[in-house]
Amino acid sequence: MEIGVLGTGMVGQAIASKLASLGHEIRMGSRKAGNEDAVAWVTEAGKGASEGTFADAAKFGELVVNCTAGVASVDALTAAGADNLAGKVLVDIANPLDFSQGMPPVLAVCNDDSLGERIQATFPEARVVKTLNTMNCQVMVDPARVPGEHAVFVSGDDDSAKREVTALLGGLGWPEERIIDLGGISTARGTEMYLPLWLSLYGQLQTGDFNIGVIRA
Amino acid sequence: MEIGVLGTGMVGQAIASKLASLGHEIRMGSRKAGNEDAVAWVTEAGKGASEGTFADAAKFGELVVNCTAGVASVDALTAAGADNLAGKVLVDIANPLDFSQGMPPVLAVCNDDSLGERIQATFPEARVVKTLNTMNCQVMVDPARVPGEHAVFVSGDDDSAKREVTALLGGLGWPEERIIDLGGISTARGTEMYLPLWLSLYGQLQTGDFNIGVIRA
Repeated sequence: MEIGVLGTGMVGQAIASKLASLGHEIRMGSRKAGNEDAVAWVTEAGKGASEGTFADAAKFGELVVNCTAGVASVDALTAAGADNLAGKVLVDIANPLDFSQGMPPVLAVCNDDSLGERIQATFPEARVVKTLNTMNCQVMVDPARVPGEHAVFVSGDDDSAKREVTALLGGLGWPEERIIDLGGISTARGTEMYLPLWLSLYGQLQTGDFNIGVIRA
Repeated sequence: MEIGVLGTGMVGQAIASKLASLGHEIRMGSRKAGNEDAVAWVTEAGKGASEGTFADAAKFGELVVNCTAGVASVDALTAAGADNLAGKVLVDIANPLDFSQGMPPVLAVCNDDSLGERIQATFPEARVVKTLNTMNCQVMVDPARVPGEHAVFVSGDDDSAKREVTALLGGLGWPEERIIDLGGISTARGTEMYLPLWLSLYGQLQTGDFNIGVIRA
């Protein structure tokens, strides 16, 4: 599949590399074509890898993954272009973490709204699925590095888009029984608002190699 | 131990009954003495059980448990009286869920503050420990009803208070290795902000008999 990955940071690189290793053609997008990190990634990823602007990557992808910083995501997606996102599955991995007031970060949007909802509202023709935002990027693309029955969540208004994303998550190594469909895109509030707990756990465990599991009676 | 339990709802009843069954003397507090639910609870709990105002219960307890509705907790604790809480461990189980705008509820305080912090700030001489607020009250007092390594969190600024609460949780059935100390009371933000995810899971699983575990590499 041709996939556009928006963002050149750790999350974008991890997702793009894993998807490329699975045989997908990836175009990494950033604010300007020729971004140093994107060019370095293309060189390392080799065949099928390319880079360009956010719009280049969004146009290229049959499916688009938002790995930009959450506080800049709506701007990045606006640069990507509503027309280039229309009808496509838009996987939103970002968290709206605002570090401008120091540590710990606060959420730039939460409680009665979420970044996932804002993206869906801003790009109504995109089929937004929020997922993978509850763990660090190493665990996202290699869930087996954490043993046991830990979970990944999906939120979205479009059931067929969630099925496509569930298949994509399967490719990343997520068994279907550990992929929990929370419901519509408004349930992204829950996974985004989980971030403060994740950050506290990260501080106490001194590692990002953890995840939560949902254990039922 | 003599324990004051503030609140006569499902959480207060579950906590009070379990603590009474462990041999603690419990006084259940409510806005007015003679509250119907409190009187019924006392009748059922029998020896060592009593009821009264919030102030009666707080004065009675060597340790006090806040099981009131989160949006009313600061008022309830004010009625309980700062003097009756001073120096005591105050276990805060409440979540600041605001149902006034309909479902799903929003948090009345979150992101850069939490109910746990507000209680600690309002009653600086109380030794506030936030815990148990990430699950339903059946699981709180009978963790074995959910199999596996699920977790309970504690947040508080006073380490000796957290040790006392850890021992109390042990009495409720929580093995020490599943009690995760998140740090200071500000980490209550994380466990309170987890509630929207809990509510989505509750909606999807159609049962409150679940909990999260923290799985480490």
